[in-house]
Amino acid sequence: MRIDIISVVPDILKSPFEASILQRAIKKGLVEIHLHNLRDYTTDNYKTVDDYQFGGGAGMVMMIEPIDKCISKLKSEREYQEVIYMTPDGERLQQKTANMLSLHENIIILCGHYKGVDQRVRDQFITKEISIGDYVLSGGELGAAVLCDSIIRLIPGVLGNETSALTDSFQDNLLAPPVYTRPAEYKGWKVPEVLTSGNFPKIEAWREDAAYERTKRLRPDLLEDE
Amino acid sequence: MRIDIISVVPDILKSPFEASILQRAIKKGLVEIHLHNLRDYTTDNYKTVDDYQFGGGAGMVMMIEPIDKCISKLKSEREYQEVIYMTPDGERLQQKTANMLSLHENIIILCGHYKGVDQRVRDQFITKEISIGDYVLSGGELGAAVLCDSIIRLIPGVLGNETSALTDSFQDNLLAPPVYTRPAEYKGWKVPEVLTSGNFPKIEAWREDAAYERTKRLRPDLLEDE
Repeated sequence: MRIDIISVVPDILKSPFEASILQRAIKKGLVEIHLHNLRDYTTDNYKTVDDYQFGGGAGMVMMIEPIDKCISKLKSEREYQEVIYMTPDGERLQQKTANMLSLHENIIILCGHYKGVDQRVRDQFITKEISIGDYVLSGGELGAAVLCDSIIRLIPGVLGNETSALTDSFQDNLLAPPVYTRPAEYKGWKVPEVLTSGNFPKIEAWREDAAYERTKRLRPDLLEDE
Repeated sequence: MRIDIISVVPDILKSPFEASILQRAIKKGLVEIHLHNLRDYTTDNYKTVDDYQFGGGAGMVMMIEPIDKCISKLKSEREYQEVIYMTPDGERLQQKTANMLSLHENIIILCGHYKGVDQRVRDQFITKEISIGDYVLSGGELGAAVLCDSIIRLIPGVLGNETSALTDSFQDNLLAPPVYTRPAEYKGWKVPEVLTSGNFPKIEAWREDAAYERTKRLRPDLLEDE
């Protein structure tokens, strides 16, 4: 899989791809991440990527021309299944979106910054608008990193143990059950006895109950989705 | 404001704080970010921070002892208003959570990794569990960066123009209206005429209508919240 990320501050995105699981996925050749600095697609001496908004008001708007140039160049080189714009008013990212996107070969992610991109960019070039949640960030860069992480860890071979991703929260509309590790007792706080019993059918039943109970308590809406 | 972030892979978090608005907020002294590597709080030669889960199953669990040591040390130095754990089954981050947290003086953010932390950590030390959305990530680090960004940009003085954050999506339960910048025409695609009319009351009315229409079309649930 290849992911092209377009941004005015691509440096924000360096370290998330240089550590842990994402770095290993890149090193293994399972995914390619290409960061594009929008300023490289400007034509004036000041490398201008934004301008005041028509009609007045606080906050700068990202101009259409550099974005058009960057996306057009990429599209002339290969076919993209999606051109995604990260924006708080996009479709909210859910696990099933990540599952679906992880099957694509090439995607472009455009990060908004300042007050966002000129609406004509969204109308003309964007095939999917995604929000990572109902809150506002300085730009789309962290959203893009979050989206990439959610997608990349689903690509076969990225996680050491393939069952690991399948037992995560949300893959079955249930939150994950509580987990415990050694020591069995710490400052008087003990692990539930069943988990050290060695009785695996009982442990499985306990986990199912705990996952259901936790979901019902914290996120009853997930149980209604079915 | 001071934010202490505890992680097993703090390097992931470097670049998000070294660019753009977050960097400027740090340089201006409006916020301090302290990254803590959990391995510095281990006592064995291997700097072990995780272990197999009790009861079996894929995925490692973060141990209670290094986390206890790190949090206890921080708490002995100053008072914290919240000790937050980033987890997909936490309370979903919303703009109002960010607004509220931005008023605190000191907070700790603990990033989960692998299968998460030993449940006793959550039971004993955590005052608030936050999820940035209904999807699973490799760890809590990107979630912590997202949370910090959403909080820090609200601290007075961080954004150049204070009205800028107030006109963002979600601050008034409406999505932001479309924005446009120069050129007024690009490849035949034109800016809505009203925006170049200079008639400001008309522009305001157009924006209010557009924000309402967009919210009704994309996120009718926001209008029902009132």
